[in-house]
Amino acid sequence: MTPLPAPAELIYALGMAAVAVNAASAVLETEDKKMDLVGAVIVGLATSLGGGTLRDLLLNRPVFWLGDVAYLFCGLLAVGLTFVLARRIRVRAGLFVVPDAVGLALFTVVGCQIAVAAGVHWLSASLLAVITGVVGGMLRDILVNEVPLVMRPGTLYATASWLGALTLLGALQLGWGDAAAATAGGAVVLGLRLAAIRWRLRLPTYRSR
Amino acid sequence: MTPLPAPAELIYALGMAAVAVNAASAVLETEDKKMDLVGAVIVGLATSLGGGTLRDLLLNRPVFWLGDVAYLFCGLLAVGLTFVLARRIRVRAGLFVVPDAVGLALFTVVGCQIAVAAGVHWLSASLLAVITGVVGGMLRDILVNEVPLVMRPGTLYATASWLGALTLLGALQLGWGDAAAATAGGAVVLGLRLAAIRWRLRLPTYRSR
Amino acid sequence: MTPLPAPAELIYALGMAAVAVNAASAVLETEDKKMDLVGAVIVGLATSLGGGTLRDLLLNRPVFWLGDVAYLFCGLLAVGLTFVLARRIRVRAGLFVVPDAVGLALFTVVGCQIAVAAGVHWLSASLLAVITGVVGGMLRDILVNEVPLVMRPGTLYATASWLGALTLLGALQLGWGDAAAATAGGAVVLGLRLAAIRWRLRLPTYRSR
Repeated sequence: MTPLPAPAELIYALGMAAVAVNAASAVLETEDKKMDLVGAVIVGLATSLGGGTLRDLLLNRPVFWLGDVAYLFCGLLAVGLTFVLARRIRVRAGLFVVPDAVGLALFTVVGCQIAVAAGVHWLSASLLAVITGVVGGMLRDILVNEVPLVMRPGTLYATASWLGALTLLGALQLGWGDAAAATAGGAVVLGLRLAAIRWRLRLPTYRSR
Repeated sequence: MTPLPAPAELIYALGMAAVAVNAASAVLETEDKKMDLVGAVIVGLATSLGGGTLRDLLLNRPVFWLGDVAYLFCGLLAVGLTFVLARRIRVRAGLFVVPDAVGLALFTVVGCQIAVAAGVHWLSASLLAVITGVVGGMLRDILVNEVPLVMRPGTLYATASWLGALTLLGALQLGWGDAAAATAGGAVVLGLRLAAIRWRLRLPTYRSR
Repeated sequence: MTPLPAPAELIYALGMAAVAVNAASAVLETEDKKMDLVGAVIVGLATSLGGGTLRDLLLNRPVFWLGDVAYLFCGLLAVGLTFVLARRIRVRAGLFVVPDAVGLALFTVVGCQIAVAAGVHWLSASLLAVITGVVGGMLRDILVNEVPLVMRPGTLYATASWLGALTLLGALQLGWGDAAAATAGGAVVLGLRLAAIRWRLRLPTYRSR
């Protein structure tokens, strides 16, 4: 269990990758909205930076993309490339599904690690992980005036994020190293989310008698 | 006017009750949205914690549910119980109206007390009370993609919250004790909101010539 | 390039004017929503204070309208006057277009100046200027459940704000005084936005092959 990349570096690299992936998938996902370039930039940045921003505001930490402008450049680059490439290369419907699940897993893991480092209760940490994972996508859907994907039954979106966060927290409690716990948590998010899409898993929906 | 429960304890108990009530009524109110359990948890927590969270961010106070995890457990419990019970027990349409009005009154009073304790101007305090009272419900409606209830004419929702807050602030100005002022303010919110529902009170709506 | 009004006073006066203009134009713009007076107050205040509030939260500065209650009085007065006057005086459709563009220019300039004063990277400062300029209008549209105007192609709304901010930052880089740079930036926002409306300018919209 030797965490070869130091935790801080691991968090950094994962976070940067998640920003790029989420920005790109947000642009792909809003294709039918006929947005212009600046609209795409706004949706891409809100999706990729929104969850971590809310997490930082709640924890009263400096907002991550103001402290390190590389996140902004990374998000802008991902939006720009997606915008340009998607006009040239044929993008299949559903292509965004796997990167989106990867982005959810990355954000959940990074959010959970940061909340743990801030010393909050495990239940709060799991919720901050879910917030980091799903709030960006909620903002995206609210900005284009759709019911947030995460609220629609049958997506197991927030469920996967929450169970992954709880896995990571449980693994840390069992004494696993940071990298191992992060890998386990991320694998749960990714596996559950992809399984939910593949086999159309569902939680029971609410109804009153 | 002896405020038997100390102000801090009163704020705490009222806040906890308001979280439970608002979480439960949010779940009841979104019945026709066919959300699953995790969707209900998100809507329930956003509704019950959202207003106070924005108030704390604006006042640059520690976010209340990160400092005391009991709020999270309380909100989760209320959502879970409502989710399970409502599948067994027949819930009449409109059942959520009175608890929702009680939750509005509690949140308004708690928000106003916290803003006063933070030493802001009375006009700002009254607005922070309204924010604490209505932002959770706004988030709920935005998450399920409806026009926020508070924006629809004929609900007197924010009006009741605002007049209650001004009553509380006026009573403090007159030298009333904390508990008496809180009771007066809460009674105004509850009374106005229930009267608005019962007699379909309305403010004049905006129209240009 | 002697900036006759001191920068701090210039920021203050511009900010106050922008709050009044944005509050009034928000009320005018939501005419067909049949809101009552308190609904109009909420939309007016959210529109006129929302962008600057998010900027202040992100920069971890005290929220501007809590530090100086004059902004609240100013916003309330603008909403109240608009509400009352528009019932008496015939308001032409499209009347809000020019004040809205002026408000966008003022907010962009003030937001950019505050971000520069906070010492953030120029790219972050330009984004905070756009946030100050457009988030209020986004909140307005989300509150009345419409696709935010800023996301619809053909408005050049955020584009004008961004190019104006970059102009201001470039002018400062070239050694211009605060007032001159602010004037140049504001002129770019106003000119682009009005030109976009007049000649229906558009950016290329996103589509995949």
